[in-house]
Amino acid sequence: MESIIIDMDEVMADTMRGMINWYRENGYDGAIDFGKMPGGSWIKGFPEQHQAMVRSHIFDPGFFRNLPVMKDCAEVIEQLNKKYRVFIVSAAMEFPHSLKDKLDWLNEHFTFLTWQQFVFCGSKSIVQGDHMIDDLVRNFTGFKGKPYLFSGPHNSEISGYDRLNSWKEVAAVFL
Amino acid sequence: MESIIIDMDEVMADTMRGMINWYRENGYDGAIDFGKMPGGSWIKGFPEQHQAMVRSHIFDPGFFRNLPVMKDCAEVIEQLNKKYRVFIVSAAMEFPHSLKDKLDWLNEHFTFLTWQQFVFCGSKSIVQGDHMIDDLVRNFTGFKGKPYLFSGPHNSEISGYDRLNSWKEVAAVFL
Repeated sequence: MESIIIDMDEVMADTMRGMINWYRENGYDGAIDFGKMPGGSWIKGFPEQHQAMVRSHIFDPGFFRNLPVMKDCAEVIEQLNKKYRVFIVSAAMEFPHSLKDKLDWLNEHFTFLTWQQFVFCGSKSIVQGDHMIDDLVRNFTGFKGKPYLFSGPHNSEISGYDRLNSWKEVAAVFL
Repeated sequence: MESIIIDMDEVMADTMRGMINWYRENGYDGAIDFGKMPGGSWIKGFPEQHQAMVRSHIFDPGFFRNLPVMKDCAEVIEQLNKKYRVFIVSAAMEFPHSLKDKLDWLNEHFTFLTWQQFVFCGSKSIVQGDHMIDDLVRNFTGFKGKPYLFSGPHNSEISGYDRLNSWKEVAAVFL
């Protein structure tokens, strides 16, 4: 059975949308400029005077606990889980409070997965498998399997990778 | 630069000793029988009527935060870290509260390591590198590098692996 390594933020979890929701709920009405995200991080799309605050909120307990699940993601991973060895690999170690939040989030929304399938790391260079779905090309460095770039506004200008634009497309490729 | 994958519990952290300390501090004076540990877990060395309680304490917040560091471990890993790509890989995912505790423990005792070098997983089958030091042979399954069994009372009857009996021996082999 082949393995698929799946990233969390911006692939399974709509981290950017979670941040925009938090920003609005806290009374900020600054325009989000998606055109400023390519080649960097979605943080660049927030008004400059709020970027440090947004970056800091990523470190707060609870931020990763309440993120929206990407459309069709749970349904497609449930099917993938029957045909592949699925591993969820998140570079979470930079955010100490995210570890428990991410585990609880996975256990809530992906009840068909088990803790044996979860990996929280710093660098993904240590992880090997047959396929990797990720939104950051730096995570493909040293990976010997096949990489797939999951599209988001922050990586729209990158070329040279097979792209997956939605979970419907993931299903079309792998199922 | 070759990589070394190092396990935490019973290799870097004296988890068994931490549990015995807790057991004594909580007023229990049952004999610990090291002869009952081989072929299983060190939990088997505790009096039978206390094994469920001991097992349950592993899941408590704080248990992994205060474990003793194995003798010479920090000094040797500091040296290894100059010659190898060192990764600390712990099958921590079974114990949700251990994640933050383990990260804080690493940051306290191994200040020369960075979060990029830490991996918390369920199954180690996804991890690859040149060398792996672990006390549980099941973690060597599928590993394509060279395995080294770090000795403890629970694995004393296992043969067929190169053994490391102390951190002094780790230094002798790798430095």
